[in-house]
This record gives sequence, structure tokens and C-alpha cells, in this order.
Amino acid sequence: MKKWKRDKRKKGITGAEGRRFTKKVSGKIGLPPGSLVHTGDKREGGVRIRIVEYEGDRFQEREIRSLDECFPLKSKPAVTWIDIDGIHDTEVVRRAGELLNLHPLLLEDIVTAGQHPKVEEHDDYLFIVLKRLEMKDGPEGIDNEISAEQISIVFGSNYVLTFSEHEDETFASVRDLLRSANGRFRRRGPDYLAYIILDAVVDRYFLVLDRLGERIERTEEELISTPSAETVNDIHLLKREMLFLRKSVWPLREMVSSLQRCGSELVDETTRAYLRDVHDHVIQVLDTTETFREMVYGMFDIYLSSLSNRMNEVMKILTMFASIFIPLTFLVGVYGMNFEFMPELKWKWSYPILWLFMIAMAVSMLVYFKRKKWF
Amino acid sequence: MKKWKRDKRKKGITGAEGRRFTKKVSGKIGLPPGSLVHTGDKREGGVRIRIVEYEGDRFQEREIRSLDECFPLKSKPAVTWIDIDGIHDTEVVRRAGELLNLHPLLLEDIVTAGQHPKVEEHDDYLFIVLKRLEMKDGPEGIDNEISAEQISIVFGSNYVLTFSEHEDETFASVRDLLRSANGRFRRRGPDYLAYIILDAVVDRYFLVLDRLGERIERTEEELISTPSAETVNDIHLLKREMLFLRKSVWPLREMVSSLQRCGSELVDETTRAYLRDVHDHVIQVLDTTETFREMVYGMFDIYLSSLSNRMNEVMKILTMFASIFIPLTFLVGVYGMNFEFMPELKWKWSYPILWLFMIAMAVSMLVYFKRKKWF
Amino acid sequence: MKKWKRDKRKKGITGAEGRRFTKKVSGKIGLPPGSLVHTGDKREGGVRIRIVEYEGDRFQEREIRSLDECFPLKSKPAVTWIDIDGIHDTEVVRRAGELLNLHPLLLEDIVTAGQHPKVEEHDDYLFIVLKRLEMKDGPEGIDNEISAEQISIVFGSNYVLTFSEHEDETFASVRDLLRSANGRFRRRGPDYLAYIILDAVVDRYFLVLDRLGERIERTEEELISTPSAETVNDIHLLKREMLFLRKSVWPLREMVSSLQRCGSELVDETTRAYLRDVHDHVIQVLDTTETFREMVYGMFDIYLSSLSNRMNEVMKILTMFASIFIPLTFLVGVYGMNFEFMPELKWKWSYPILWLFMIAMAVSMLVYFKRKKWF
Amino acid sequence: MKKWKRDKRKKGITGAEGRRFTKKVSGKIGLPPGSLVHTGDKREGGVRIRIVEYEGDRFQEREIRSLDECFPLKSKPAVTWIDIDGIHDTEVVRRAGELLNLHPLLLEDIVTAGQHPKVEEHDDYLFIVLKRLEMKDGPEGIDNEISAEQISIVFGSNYVLTFSEHEDETFASVRDLLRSANGRFRRRGPDYLAYIILDAVVDRYFLVLDRLGERIERTEEELISTPSAETVNDIHLLKREMLFLRKSVWPLREMVSSLQRCGSELVDETTRAYLRDVHDHVIQVLDTTETFREMVYGMFDIYLSSLSNRMNEVMKILTMFASIFIPLTFLVGVYGMNFEFMPELKWKWSYPILWLFMIAMAVSMLVYFKRKKWF
Amino acid sequence: MKKWKRDKRKKGITGAEGRRFTKKVSGKIGLPPGSLVHTGDKREGGVRIRIVEYEGDRFQEREIRSLDECFPLKSKPAVTWIDIDGIHDTEVVRRAGELLNLHPLLLEDIVTAGQHPKVEEHDDYLFIVLKRLEMKDGPEGIDNEISAEQISIVFGSNYVLTFSEHEDETFASVRDLLRSANGRFRRRGPDYLAYIILDAVVDRYFLVLDRLGERIERTEEELISTPSAETVNDIHLLKREMLFLRKSVWPLREMVSSLQRCGSELVDETTRAYLRDVHDHVIQVLDTTETFREMVYGMFDIYLSSLSNRMNEVMKILTMFASIFIPLTFLVGVYGMNFEFMPELKWKWSYPILWLFMIAMAVSMLVYFKRKKWF
Repeated sequence: MKKWKRDKRKKGITGAEGRRFTKKVSGKIGLPPGSLVHTGDKREGGVRIRIVEYEGDRFQEREIRSLDECFPLKSKPAVTWIDIDGIHDTEVVRRAGELLNLHPLLLEDIVTAGQHPKVEEHDDYLFIVLKRLEMKDGPEGIDNEISAEQISIVFGSNYVLTFSEHEDETFASVRDLLRSANGRFRRRGPDYLAYIILDAVVDRYFLVLDRLGERIERTEEELISTPSAETVNDIHLLKREMLFLRKSVWPLREMVSSLQRCGSELVDETTRAYLRDVHDHVIQVLDTTETFREMVYGMFDIYLSSLSNRMNEVMKILTMFASIFIPLTFLVGVYGMNFEFMPELKWKWSYPILWLFMIAMAVSMLVYFKRKKWF
Repeated sequence: MKKWKRDKRKKGITGAEGRRFTKKVSGKIGLPPGSLVHTGDKREGGVRIRIVEYEGDRFQEREIRSLDECFPLKSKPAVTWIDIDGIHDTEVVRRAGELLNLHPLLLEDIVTAGQHPKVEEHDDYLFIVLKRLEMKDGPEGIDNEISAEQISIVFGSNYVLTFSEHEDETFASVRDLLRSANGRFRRRGPDYLAYIILDAVVDRYFLVLDRLGERIERTEEELISTPSAETVNDIHLLKREMLFLRKSVWPLREMVSSLQRCGSELVDETTRAYLRDVHDHVIQVLDTTETFREMVYGMFDIYLSSLSNRMNEVMKILTMFASIFIPLTFLVGVYGMNFEFMPELKWKWSYPILWLFMIAMAVSMLVYFKRKKWF
Repeated sequence: MKKWKRDKRKKGITGAEGRRFTKKVSGKIGLPPGSLVHTGDKREGGVRIRIVEYEGDRFQEREIRSLDECFPLKSKPAVTWIDIDGIHDTEVVRRAGELLNLHPLLLEDIVTAGQHPKVEEHDDYLFIVLKRLEMKDGPEGIDNEISAEQISIVFGSNYVLTFSEHEDETFASVRDLLRSANGRFRRRGPDYLAYIILDAVVDRYFLVLDRLGERIERTEEELISTPSAETVNDIHLLKREMLFLRKSVWPLREMVSSLQRCGSELVDETTRAYLRDVHDHVIQVLDTTETFREMVYGMFDIYLSSLSNRMNEVMKILTMFASIFIPLTFLVGVYGMNFEFMPELKWKWSYPILWLFMIAMAVSMLVYFKRKKWF
Repeated sequence: MKKWKRDKRKKGITGAEGRRFTKKVSGKIGLPPGSLVHTGDKREGGVRIRIVEYEGDRFQEREIRSLDECFPLKSKPAVTWIDIDGIHDTEVVRRAGELLNLHPLLLEDIVTAGQHPKVEEHDDYLFIVLKRLEMKDGPEGIDNEISAEQISIVFGSNYVLTFSEHEDETFASVRDLLRSANGRFRRRGPDYLAYIILDAVVDRYFLVLDRLGERIERTEEELISTPSAETVNDIHLLKREMLFLRKSVWPLREMVSSLQRCGSELVDETTRAYLRDVHDHVIQVLDTTETFREMVYGMFDIYLSSLSNRMNEVMKILTMFASIFIPLTFLVGVYGMNFEFMPELKWKWSYPILWLFMIAMAVSMLVYFKRKKWF
Repeated sequence: MKKWKRDKRKKGITGAEGRRFTKKVSGKIGLPPGSLVHTGDKREGGVRIRIVEYEGDRFQEREIRSLDECFPLKSKPAVTWIDIDGIHDTEVVRRAGELLNLHPLLLEDIVTAGQHPKVEEHDDYLFIVLKRLEMKDGPEGIDNEISAEQISIVFGSNYVLTFSEHEDETFASVRDLLRSANGRFRRRGPDYLAYIILDAVVDRYFLVLDRLGERIERTEEELISTPSAETVNDIHLLKREMLFLRKSVWPLREMVSSLQRCGSELVDETTRAYLRDVHDHVIQVLDTTETFREMVYGMFDIYLSSLSNRMNEVMKILTMFASIFIPLTFLVGVYGMNFEFMPELKWKWSYPILWLFMIAMAVSMLVYFKRKKWF
């Protein structure tokens, strides 16, 4: 049972988790720029396209088969949100690019995993890439590790286009919000919707931090009470998670602030004020990430010192036993010698006196060690 | 008794203190932006609203039940300070926002714990968030740990609004100052009052540093005189305090200097000069924090080297005992053999000569170790 | 066999690999600035000059003997790519400089190995230096190490000039692309061709990262399952690879972004947009490099802690054996003494009782160690 | 004697030295801004006010009782230097502020210890705070530690005002310079005098570095020849000194360069050129500080490795003794057995043959260890 | 012999080398600014002044006794290079300052060792300070250490003035270049000559890096094959060299780039292009320095882990011996007891059976250790 757990942990390092960092990143070499080849994890099943349209009081939600069904986009005031799950079907991405006249390199970015979070300003639209983080449950709650999914957001004057591979409750919660919201939200433009999506994604980061915080606490408790070789493995895995988290979160800061400062007219003043709020959230996430990091790195030092401490304990026990009995063994050895002329051997009280002497010796050693606080 | 202390310490790491870093930060996911949900520690009891009004010689202080009692605000020259303790009652916060026309995201920041210290410039008012630090006493003075409380300050042309969850003597000291002060302070505007409050909060940081400094000193003395596994735990806890302190203090610097440089007309030139003073104080706090940090990190190295040193001592004792007695035991073993033809056994002086030889051997070993400075 | 492998590894450090960092860098001291002396690794065989010309539908590819064959350059709209392999023949480089009127210091940079990746803006042309990385296979796949080759690109209004010492499939793949591509690529200017070359070079970096990632994984697996002195050597070699990679990659970022922002008219707007894509790729490479680096550095800590752990194990075994048998040996020694008056020796049950007592003692020791979780 | 030294060292850490970092910094909490409360070390004795006046050939030096004796300041061209030792008498500071119309916060800075070195530009005067460093002698030259004293310089169009608590030869040397100098210095304004004072203070830093350098050298020699637990303590104390020095020196750089660039007309062009020289000196001090720091931090690593080395030596001796004698003891134990049927016991040559065998065994072990280079 | 080597090494640390960092830097305290006191190492022998004049085809080289011989400077177009070796003769420096009207603080910088490399722009001339590095040979090639010499360059519209204490082949090589060069170099102004000198000095840095690289390689080989306490000393010395090198090289970057960007008309456009080349070289030097640094720091980790590894080996041998023989010794002790009723003693086959049992026990222990891969 314990072994099984250890195996899992080992797999944790070199298996799926390790892959996160060392996975093939070279699938597209030799192709001309702008080629659409999907390089991330692939989901089972077909593409799913969801349309949400709203304008003031009007609100409509439906699922379509082909992108062409919703084009050309309706009259200006309405906002159309087209959510495409399943970017492994590069044909759909290509078609969306065609219909909205998007830059080929942008389409390439959408389908290529491992993009750095960023904002790109184009003439008619803005393009945002970021990561959606989630804490995946392992069996028994041990191997829960962070998984990241790339999300792309394109928004123009009257539409928001989102791409991802897997469906997820983050977007569902945004739909809920739109559905339930009074007219207030719906009166705003696509930039506000993009902000709502961004905010929802960043908010999930706090969930991941919560779970990670619990795991750090659990590992720390284990470290203090029963440190073992597995604990150091856990610390190692936690370091990895921190590495992964940092890599996803750091560029976000730059991304959000460049969105705030961008010159495009697509983002109006009110939305910019809201983006400041997202910016604050990102900084909080960063802060906590850094704090966690320092905590995890500090744990390793404690582990090393506890190892040294234990070695000290073991050495002390050995030294005590050896120091007490080695001289005594020598003494009894002396009276085991076969010399003919050893007067002590004939004396009547030799034996009990020797015993007394040996006991006294042992006791004084013990007192000495006691004074040195060895036990 | 000792065990109890150790338990306390362990709890120190994974209990309330650990919570400071890993506490739930995700209470508000899925809500629309601007929702008022209180996420910090909750105080027992109701809200308490204190009003201080002054204008030159006039000075009035009272406590009210409902915010509406003091609105609309009096004529311009007077400064009204409304101090609200108990932000868990989000209704009061909402009402304050309504009466003074504050931005909804600002209200959200007020009630959400874990804000980064910052300044926000709005058209009619300035918004300041910062942390009030305090050193909480643990039993026996061991577990005193830093606790932080979020304070929000909003000030406009003739009012200052402060929000916090718990009452605290910092604000009481500001009230004392206002009460006792001659007209000099009272002739100045709300920006000066905001400065006085800021200064009072930052001044308390020095108290925390004092207490922390004492604790560092105590731990260091312990480290030099009687290092133990508990010392390393104390060092670990101190590292945590430093982490926590840094996290609270670093953004303060940016905050104060952006307040100094802000373009708003609400902060007049005289007050800016005073803010430079606060800025200097913050830098002093930062400096001391960094120095403490280096000191605490250096302690761990000393602990490790003292561990190695002790291991060396233990090994030396073992080696001395073993090196002296193992050869002697061999020798007496030789003369315990039962061979029929061992001429030495028959000689008369064999036994005393052997003794002399063995003593000489032991003494020469001791001299050798003495020369190597082993004891 | 194993020894052979270890020897290989040692050679890995101080042999060819070590050379990468500590190789002679001082070949040219005392010469006037602008002297052409080749200082990199020298390839066998002569120079090879390949010409590719295209303009819309027209596409021509040939190999020439002397640079003069393709000068003067054809009419403006066509793009001529002159690829020179074998910069050890400085005469060819000098001649190219003469024909295209290049700055003497630029020619010196081309033939001098160890240039920092950079962009230089001149009036009529732009000069780019960068490294082409490759993972060289060692025997048995152990010693695969990164090798870097310096590539120089000069491009003007209607030509692209590339210099390198060794031939390589990167440029071949660019030629394939040009050959197969529809008119789209061919309609663009030399700046676009330079971008294609840059992109191809940077794309290869991902291949190197893939190989490195596999090697890191393999080393980590070895570290967890069977750590040995060779593992620490492998980690050391990996650190070196990271050092080498970083040194090549970091300046690339600055290089690409200064190419993007350069004021020259030789780079048109469309190409700048494509360069942003290269910039993103470079940042991804950097990111992965940094992550790998942290992973490799973390491995060393794990190795040290596993060493300490093993030492602990060894000490425990020693201590158990010694603690159990040393007291027993003392006891049997007691009854080996030759005193005349030892009443126990005469008793009938002494011997079996002693055995029982000794067994009881050993068992209780074992129970004690079991409780302390020593085995 | 040795113990006494060790005690001194321990006191070094937690006593006066420790105080430098952890001393009470919170004496003034709750007071209104601008309150004059002296918070540094207090000198015995009263205030001492020295006046130096010069203008071209005229030069006058005297000591006065009350500040009022030298006010109002003489005609413009003359420079009056008022040097006040003893800022614990806040009344004198207050009076000086009154007479020269200084800002109340400035006066507060003068009497509050622990200011960060800085420059403040006011309309009619400039305010400079910095530290005067000194190497205090401990008994036997062991505990010499750096002590810092805060100096404040205020200079206007025709006066220079300096404040410090203790008298010191730095200012005496400046007075000597003024007294002996030909008219050249005296023809310049108060800004030049302020520069001379600044330069004299910074020059003293080199003395401190010299002393520290000697101490580092001494500790290093000790580390190489006879490393002990006291050496690590010395290294720890040196780290502290470096920490203290850095804290005092780093802000100086910013301070001097902001004085150089300040817009005030009080500093003329010639003096600015001289300030560049002070700036260079500060950078040299910084450089040396950083180098010393790296040296001291490197020492700790050497200490740790020497500890490990020594442990290795001890273990080798133990292992040699044990490995040689334990098998021999077993052997002689064999022939001490009392079996009735042990044929070897009867043979005549058994005993000498056993001795030969045992000697051969011991010698071969020694040869083995010799080959492994254990001694 | 070996001891002698070790002594040399120790001296290496605390002797001349240590002096480089901790040498007296405080020779000038208390003197007025602008005092000329030489503070570097002093060369034996008098000053040597070399004059090189050239203008197009004209080229003249001579050595003079007194500076006055070459003043006033010839007609404008010619370039006069005055090279002064021996700055300990401050009178010559003072006279040069007088003749060329140089700023007194500049002269002070020339004769004061330990200047930070820098450029100073004055109205009529530019002032450059930098370090000339050299690898000094120690006996047996062990103690080769980097030595630095301060060089000052002043150049105006038609002259270049260089100051150094010791003669050196760097300047000789520049003279060679001038002598042999065709008119090309000679047609350029003093700024170009200054560049040539700068370039020659920086080129020498590569020589130092080469030598250092070889030493690093040698130390690394030693570390892998036969690590010893002396190796750690070598690593320590290498760290020092890196420290020293960094200190000299880092400010060079800033220096060269500020020379490139300086507004002075004394540096014309062509020369600026050449300075870019020097800048690239400096960056290469920096890069290699940083790489070497990381390599040297990594070595220490390897040393520590090899120490731990060796300790493990020693412990294993001890544990094997003890674990095998301690139980056996106990067994033979049992049959050495003198109980009257020990039936086994009478049995005929007891003795050989015991032997068989003991051999079986020892063999099974060995098999066990073999399986654990202990040997």
C-alpha cells in the first residue's frame, strides 16, 4: 500500500507531471509560418460552438453546428459571444479567421499550445492569450497537480470570440452571470464581456492557490512530525508546482497592464477602471505565489537539518553503548587471562569487588552523558 | 511542560499562523464584479461609527447609529472624519458608498481582505488601502506573532472616511492628538488628517520591529548557548514573520510615493512635504526588515554548523574510546587463549609487565589525541 | 564497461565540452582592428557558395565557384540569397565585403567565433549575428551535448547574404520552403527571407530543448531510483548545458526586439508583425530554459539529501549491531573470568538461564529499535 | 582566559552590537509630527557650540554659550560655520530652527537617530543627513566594531550648520584645513565648505574599510590554520559588520548623486565637479564593501567543508582501528573457547603460527588503507 | 615538498593576493582635495616619457627627459602621444596638468590607485581611467594570479596623454601598430589613437581569460580525480580571482558605452562605430567571466558531495567489519565461559560445527551487503 503510494509519487515526477515541462515542443519545425497544426492535448469528441447574443434587454443563447450560421454578425449595438471548444479541429479556427478577417499568425497562436500570456493589438480587434489553471484531483487527493489550459480571446467592435480545447465551468459561470444579470452588464460592449471572462479566469487562480496552500500545510505538518524520504519527494513536487504556477502567472501581470494601457478604442474608459481591479487580483496571486515559493524552499532546509539531527541522535546512542561497554569488556577480558601468577584470581572478594567497580564505572559514565544532555 | 511548549510551537506553524498565508482567498468566485462580500476575519458585535468634526476652534466628537445622521455634510471649511469599525456589515459600507457616490469596485476592495497597499485617484476623492500591523501576545510571550488588519481611507474635499474591522488604539491616539492639539492641526484640510492617520499607522510598525528585534535576539542567544531542534523551529517561525512583514511593507513604499506624486488637487503642497517624512519612515522600516531578514537567514547556517560541530565531538569521543580499548581488549584476549604451549603464561612477571605495557599504550594514545587537540 | 562509461563522462567535463567555455579566445591580439582571422572550429573541405534567386514566379537555384559570378546583382525586384559555407576562407568573406561595400569591422565579426547575438543597423544593409544550436549525439546517447555555430546574416534592398562554417539542414529546410511555396512568399522582399531564416534557426532551438528535456527526465529517474556519484556528474554536466544554452539564448531576446524596433526602411511593417512571432518563440525558449535550469539545480539538493539519508541508514545498521552485541559480549566475558570464587559457575542452571537472559535482552533491544522505526 | 575571550565574543553578538540592529526604534509613537525628542545614544556633558567665520583673508574661530550670540548673521560675503555637538539638548536645536527659519520636520530628523542618508532641497537651504563611521577598539583588538553617528548638515547662502551628538576628529581636521589653507578655500561659498565636510566624512570610511580588511585577513588566516567554533562566530560577527556597513553606505550613493543633480542655486558649478569626486569615492567604498561581503560569505563555505573534512579524518581513524583489531579479537576469542576437542590447542607451533598470521593480517590491512590514501 | 606547496597556497590567500582586496586604501585622509599623493604599488627606477608624433606620412618616435621638451604642442593636424610611465613621481603629473591645463581632481585620480573605470567629459579633453590586467606567473605555475594596473588616458584635439606606473607590452604593441601601419591609421585623430589603446587593453583581457580557463580546467580535473583539502583551497582562490576580475570588468561596460554616447566633439562618428566593437568585446569578456564564475561556484557543490560520498564509503567499511565480526566475537565468547555444566563443550563435533556456523553467518552477511550494493 505504502509502496503503491511511493510509486505514484515517483510517477508524479517523471510521468504526466514531468511532461508538463519537458513535453515535445517541436512539433511544427520546417513548416511555413502561419500553418495551423494543433499541438496541445487533444480532447475526445467534436467541436462545440455556443452563441450568446445580447443587447440591453434582449438575451439569446444557442448552440450551433457551423460558424456560418451566425454570420454576418447582427447590427452594431448587439454583442455576440462565440465560444468554440475544441481547437484541435483547425478547420473551424481557419474558418473563424476567414469570416472575421484575422491575421494568420494569430490563428497559429490559437492552436499552438505553450503560448506566453499576451495581448496583441490589431486594427479591428484585440487578441488575448492566457492560461486557465485548475487543480486536478489525483487518487486519494495526493497527486493533485495544477493543469493549465490555453484560452484565446478575440474581441472586436461587436463580437467576442473565445477558443479553448476543453469545456470548463469558468465559462459556464460567465454565462450564468450574463443570464441572471439585470440590464446593467448587458448595456456594455464586448470589451466589458472580455473583462468579465478575464476576471472569471483570474478568480479561479485563487481556488488553485487555496488547494496548493492546503497541500503545503499538509506537507509541512508531515515534515515536522514524521519526516521521511517521501517528504523530500513531496517538497520536490511542490517546488515543481510553484515553478509551473510562476511560469503561468508572471507574464499575466505584464499582459493585463498592457491591456489597460493599450491605445485601442475598443477598450473604453469604464472598462479600463475595471481592468485595474483585475490587475490588483493578479498582483495578489503573484504575491501569494512568491510567499508559497519561499515557504516551500525553506522546508528543504528544515528537512536537511532534521536529517542531521537524527544522525546526531543515532551517533549518540552508538557512542553511549560503545563507551560504556568497551572498557568493561576489556576488564573482564583481563580476568579471563590464563597467567599462572595472577594473585587477584585467588582472592575471595575479587569477583564481587570487580562487579561493584564495573557498576560504578557504568553509572559514572551515564551521569557524565546525562550532564552533557545526551538523553 | 516542555512538550506543551513544543506543541504550541508546532501549532504555531500549521495553526493560526500558517493560516495567514494559506487562508481561503477564494470566497467570492462566480459573483459579478462589485459584489460586497466580506472575506476577512469577522469581529463579534455590531458596527461602530464615530464622527469627529472640526474647523479651526470648533471641535466635536460623537458616536452615531446610522450614517444618515451625519449627512448631508456640513459647510465646506469643516473637516468631518467618519470612522467605521466593523466592515463585516456590508450594508453600512454600501450606504456610505451611496451617500458619497463612491465607485463600486472601491467598495468591494474595502470589504475584501488581502488587498495590496495602494492608492487610487478618483475625480472627487482619493482611496488608500494599507495594513495596520500589531504584535499579538501568545501565552508566555513565545508565540507572539504579527497580525495585520486592512484599513481603508477615503478622503474628499471636506471629509475623511476610514474603514476597519477591529477597533484599535492607533485611531484613538489620532483622536487624542486632534482633541489636544491647538488650532494648528485643525486649520488644515482632510489631506492633513489622512496624513496624520497614515503616519500613526506607519509609526506602529516600529513597535512591531522592536518586538521582533527582541525575539530575534532571544533566539540568537538560544542558538549560541543551547541550540536544539526547537531553535530551528523558532528560526523557521521567524522566517515566516519576516515573509509576512515584507509582504505588508514592500508595497507601502510605492504607495506612499505615488501619493506624494499624485496629480490630485486634494493633496496640497504642505501635506506633500509631510508625506516625504512618512516616506522616510517607510524606508527605515524596509531597511530594518531587510537587515532582520539577513540576520534570520544567517542564523540557520550557524545552526547547521553547530550541528556538524556537535557530531564531530560525538565522533571524537567514540573514536577515542574505541581506539584505546579495542587494541587492549585484543591483547587480553591473546592471553585468554588455551594453547598448551604459551610460555609467557608460566613466567612470573608476565602479568604485571602486561599491565605496564597496556597502561603505556593507553597513555601514549591519550597523548596523541591531546596533541591533535581532540579534548 | 562501467569504467569506460565513467571515463567518457569525465572526458565530457574536461574534454571537448569544457573547451566550449574555456577555449582559446585570444587568437587575434596585437592585430590592427578589421583584420580577418578565422577563430572558430575549422571544417574540412573548401567553400561552398549557393545562390537562390526569385521574383514572383521566377525561381532559380544554383551553386557557384566564385562570388564574382553573381555580381552585379540583378534588377531590383528580384531577391538574391547568397549562402556561403566555409568562413575559414577569409578571402571569400573579404571579397563579399568588397562587392557589397560592407564595413571592415562587420567582416571581422563574421569570421570571429564567439560573437554575442546582435543586430547592427548600417545605412544600406542590416547585419545579424546569431547561434545555430544542435544536439550532438555522443556514443550510446549519453554524451549528447549542445553545439553552437555562429551564423551571420546581411541583407540589403535586394539581397540576403548568409555566412556559416558548416552546412546544416536548417538552411536546406528554408530552401525547401522557398522551392515549394506558392508565389506568396516569393512576392516579399529580402527582409521576409531574413525572417524566414531567423525563424528556422529559432525553431531548431525547440528540438534542442526536447532532447535536453528527455535527458533531464532520464537523469531525474536515475536520481530517484539509483543515485550514485555518476548521477552527480550527470547533474553537473546538465548544469553546464544550461549555462551554455542560457549564454546563447539570453541575448537573442534583445536582438530580436531591437530588430523589430529598428528604424531602418529595409524592414517593412508586415515583416515586423512576423518578427513579433519570432520574439514570442524566443521568450518561450527562454522560459523553458529557465524552468529546466531550476529543475537541474533542484536535483542537486535531492542528491545531497539522498546521500544524508543513506548515511543515516548505514549508521543505524551499525548502531543496531553494536548496541545489541556489545553488552552481550561483555556478559559472556564475565563468565569467562578465571576467579576461583565465582559461585554462579557451579550452579546447574546458570548456563541456560544466561542464554534466556541474553535472548530477552536482544529481543527487547530489537523491539526498542522497531518502535523508533529504525527498520 | 580563553573562556573570557569567548564570553566577550558572545556578548559581541547579543550585547552592544546586536543592539545596533534591534535597538528600540519606537520612542516617539503617538506624538504629533514635528515633536523634538532625542532618540539616539546620549553623550554626557552639555552642548558645545563652535563658530568659524571666514571671508577671504579674515578667519575667526570661537566657542559660544548660546546660539543667540552669533545672530543675526554677518554681512553676506562671509561664511559662518556653526557646529553644534550635543543634540540631546533639543532646546538648542529648536532655537537654531527658529533663528534660521527651518522646517519643523527637518528639526525632528536632526534629533531622531536612524535616519537614512538623504538630501532635502528647501527654498533657502539644503539639508543633508549622513552617518559618520568609526571603528571602535575593543579590548585586545578583537571586538572592534563599527559604530555610526548621525550628522546633519544645513547650509544656506552664507552659513553652514552642523549637528552631531559626539565630538570627533573629522570636524577637527576640517577646521585644521580651513585654518591652514591659503585664501583659495576661503574664497568659496558655504556649498564648498559643505563639500569639504562631506569629503572628510566619506574619507573616514576608508579607514573603517582598512580596519575591517585587516580583521577579515586575520579571521581567514585563523580559518585556514586552526578553524574552531569560535571562527564561525567571528565570521558571523563579520557578516554583521558587513550588514551594518552596507546599510550605511548604500543610500549614500543616491544621496551624493541627488546632491550633484539638485536644481538649487546654492550649489554652484565648481562645487558640483568636486561632488563628482565624492561620488567616485562612495562608489569605491561600495565596491570594496561588496567584495568584502563576498569574501566573508565564502569563508563560511570553507568552514563547513573543513568540518566535513575533519569528520572524515576522525571516521577514518576509527574505521582503521576497528577494521584491524575486531577480526583479530575474534580470532583470539576462538582459541579462548573451552571445547574439549580442539586439536589446534595441543599442537606445539599453534601459538607462534597464530601470531604470524595475525601480524600478516594487520599488515595487509595497513597496506590496503595506505593504498586508499587513508593516511 | 607537498607541504611547501601548501604553504605557498596559504600565502596565496593571506599574502600578496589578499592584499589586493584589503590593502590600505586610506593613505590620504585629512589632506585637502586635489593633493597629489601616489597610493599604488611603486615601481623602482625613474620616470620614462615616450613621445610619438605622426601626421599622415610623417612619423616620429623619441624618448625625452622632461615634459617641457615637447611643449608647446606642434601645429594642429599632427597627433602627439605622450606616454608617461612612473606616476609615483607626482611632480611630472603635476607639470603635465599645468601644461595642458587639466583639472586638479583629475590629476589626483591619476595618481590614486583603486579608481573605478570611468570616463569624464571636460571642455577641452576627455579623461578615461581603466585597468590593465595581467596574469602573473607564480613559481611552478600554481599561483598565477591576476594583477591589475591603473591606466589613465587624456586626449584633446591634437594630443593623447597616457599614464601608468609600470611599462608593459600592451603599449609597445600599439607603437608597433602605428609604426608599421600604412597611412590609414595615421590620418585619423587622437580619438582614434585612444580607441586603439583602449582596444589593445581590452584585448589583453582575453589572454587573462584564457589562462584562467586553463586553471579552472586543471582544478576541475583535480576535483574529479583526486579531491583534497587543497582542492577546496584552489577553488577558494579561483573564486577570489573571479571576484577581482568582475570588479575590474563590470564598470568597463558602462565606461565604454558612455564614451560612445558622450556629446563631445572630440570623438567623431567613425570612431564611435569602432567603439561599438570594443563594447562588443567587453560584453564577451563579461559573459565569459560570468560563465567562469558559475563554473567555479558549481565546483564547490561537487566537492561537498564528494566529501559526503567518501564519508559514506568509510562508514560502509566500518559497518561491514563491525556487523560481521561483532556477532562472531560474541559467539566465541560464549564458549569461552567457564560454567561447569555446558554440555556442548564435551561434544566431539561442537568445534567444527561452530566454525561451519560462523562461516555461514559471515557469508550470508556478505551476500546481504552485496545485494545492498555496498561494495
